[in-house]
Amino acid sequence: MHISELDTPALLLDLDVMERNIARMADYCRKSNIGLRPHIKTHKIPAIAQRQIAAGAIGITAAKPSEAVIMAEGGIRDILIAYPIVSSAKAETLASLLAKDVNISVSIDSPEAAKCLAAAAHRAGLTIALLVEIDVGFGRCGVAGPEQAVALAAAISRLPGARFGGLMYYPGHLFVKPPEQDRLIKDVDEKVEAAYAALITAGFEVPVVSGGSSPTALRSTEFTHLTEIRPGMYPLNDRNLVEGGFARTEDCALTVLTTVVSTAVAGRAIVDGGSKTFSSDRHLTGDGRGFGLILGDPDALFYNLSEEHGHLDIQESAASYKVGQTVRVVPNHVCTTINMHDAIYAVRGDQVKDIWQVAARGCVR
Amino acid sequence: MHISELDTPALLLDLDVMERNIARMADYCRKSNIGLRPHIKTHKIPAIAQRQIAAGAIGITAAKPSEAVIMAEGGIRDILIAYPIVSSAKAETLASLLAKDVNISVSIDSPEAAKCLAAAAHRAGLTIALLVEIDVGFGRCGVAGPEQAVALAAAISRLPGARFGGLMYYPGHLFVKPPEQDRLIKDVDEKVEAAYAALITAGFEVPVVSGGSSPTALRSTEFTHLTEIRPGMYPLNDRNLVEGGFARTEDCALTVLTTVVSTAVAGRAIVDGGSKTFSSDRHLTGDGRGFGLILGDPDALFYNLSEEHGHLDIQESAASYKVGQTVRVVPNHVCTTINMHDAIYAVRGDQVKDIWQVAARGCVR
Repeated sequence: MHISELDTPALLLDLDVMERNIARMADYCRKSNIGLRPHIKTHKIPAIAQRQIAAGAIGITAAKPSEAVIMAEGGIRDILIAYPIVSSAKAETLASLLAKDVNISVSIDSPEAAKCLAAAAHRAGLTIALLVEIDVGFGRCGVAGPEQAVALAAAISRLPGARFGGLMYYPGHLFVKPPEQDRLIKDVDEKVEAAYAALITAGFEVPVVSGGSSPTALRSTEFTHLTEIRPGMYPLNDRNLVEGGFARTEDCALTVLTTVVSTAVAGRAIVDGGSKTFSSDRHLTGDGRGFGLILGDPDALFYNLSEEHGHLDIQESAASYKVGQTVRVVPNHVCTTINMHDAIYAVRGDQVKDIWQVAARGCVR
Repeated sequence: MHISELDTPALLLDLDVMERNIARMADYCRKSNIGLRPHIKTHKIPAIAQRQIAAGAIGITAAKPSEAVIMAEGGIRDILIAYPIVSSAKAETLASLLAKDVNISVSIDSPEAAKCLAAAAHRAGLTIALLVEIDVGFGRCGVAGPEQAVALAAAISRLPGARFGGLMYYPGHLFVKPPEQDRLIKDVDEKVEAAYAALITAGFEVPVVSGGSSPTALRSTEFTHLTEIRPGMYPLNDRNLVEGGFARTEDCALTVLTTVVSTAVAGRAIVDGGSKTFSSDRHLTGDGRGFGLILGDPDALFYNLSEEHGHLDIQESAASYKVGQTVRVVPNHVCTTINMHDAIYAVRGDQVKDIWQVAARGCVR
């Protein structure tokens, strides 16, 4: 089927671009001797996770246990839950995956989470690996420093059903360009080194140091002790990564096919995708304006969103916008865009090759 | 089941509050002799639309034909598509609903949309009512003025399969407080009056004038010629309506039940709902800060969102935030929040009475 036959809005995933992106990151990690554990929150599609594993990823990362269930059903056997799990329902879900020989580990930052997860694993007669999350400056989750990391590792070690699995951190504040990024890499590295050294001094083995993020993935060799990284967006990329300098427009595998539905207001073209198609995530890099990049027309500004309307300002554009014509858009944030949709169209060139359900969409628990 | 037994994040819909809200708007419209045609994009749940109809609504509004299909399956027989439909696939969907005796009308602002919809209806041997949308100052869709409205009404009248059904407008820019709102109501009314008068002068009957929005619904009698209104949010309300002065906190029927998952970073509490639970819609009223109102703790600021993390700043709060405890949040924007979820819990007090699927979630086409 040709993409012109699709009703809109529709998500198009360019398989050639995605395969190139997956191969590039897998090659980098292989050469760097760093494990690649991609975060599947970006796509939530087992078929993509399978391709990441086939290219050499050692396992995947998920945020919520319900996502892990979908991925395990899709054949993924090694899953890090990079999220502090503190509910017994979720801990039971994870224990049941462990019982099916899925290698589950979880990063945590509190004794409450450790107890909850250990208890569920212990009830199933199993042991779960718990990584201690440290805050490296993002200020979201993670214990404050080496002393707290050692205390939590010790608490984990005392719990039947749990074992200390290593260190985890998320450098979410490194979505900035050099030289600011250079300075922050050094700062993160000092914090990780301090926690690592304190754990070794306290007699712990630290088999895993899990870090990384999309904007730092290709600089992973600059981080000491790192054994694996968890980038999510690299197979697909998006406008924030492009305008942040971390990808090129031609590396963006996911675009949104929309149709112009109104040009009645002077200087405006309205397309049939709004916040329920793109999400309302802001532009975090570049000039901060707009909700997507209009392919082929950099002079059009996607300046506003209603729920089902995308508002384009075409006053500076020389292009023609006619009711009924299609417009392809690179979204600001690919993770939240895909999460809006039940399915995406996998394409090569202009041909639809497959329809993939976004199987883990809506897995908030 | 008690709500404390629910895993989180979970959407709770307070039936008592919703029933009061539905009754209040229905009473207002009945006394004002104005038809109530609620927009179901807010909830996307047939069970709620049925309650709105039972309370006296004359029909519903939807944005996308796929939403209309779900609502028709839920027993709704009169649906205005308040969205310019320009694709033949969507026009066929609407014609097939018409063929099942669902009273479908569509608001449009271009001859292209008129031709597309008329052609599909005509192929089915039917006639579809097309309303002409006029721009009353929001600057999104809608023809520019009386002359264009008359021209489009004339174009509709010439098409086999279509009939001119009246005027439609959306006063989206009136989400402001008096006295600014007073001034804008007068301005909107002058624009509607001009288009209405021109149509009458040109010999058209204007059986329907469809307007209204949540923040203007209870001022509908101040608009001339209005025959029906299309508020969406009134059954549920949200933080934007509360802080805009259009509802009280106790009128908010929908809250998000979350759990504190981390307090490791000083001055912060992280809850287990982020942009994939709340949407990332901004706070449009009040001081513009934050992503939700923490019930019972106005001193906590929901200052940031990750995809699965809600970041609370609790530095100014006297309340205690412990890992594992639940926090109930009124979201900024109820429509985009519900759209993130497969199901919501209908509660009375602390008891779960029903689980409703968000049946039209993901209906972007």
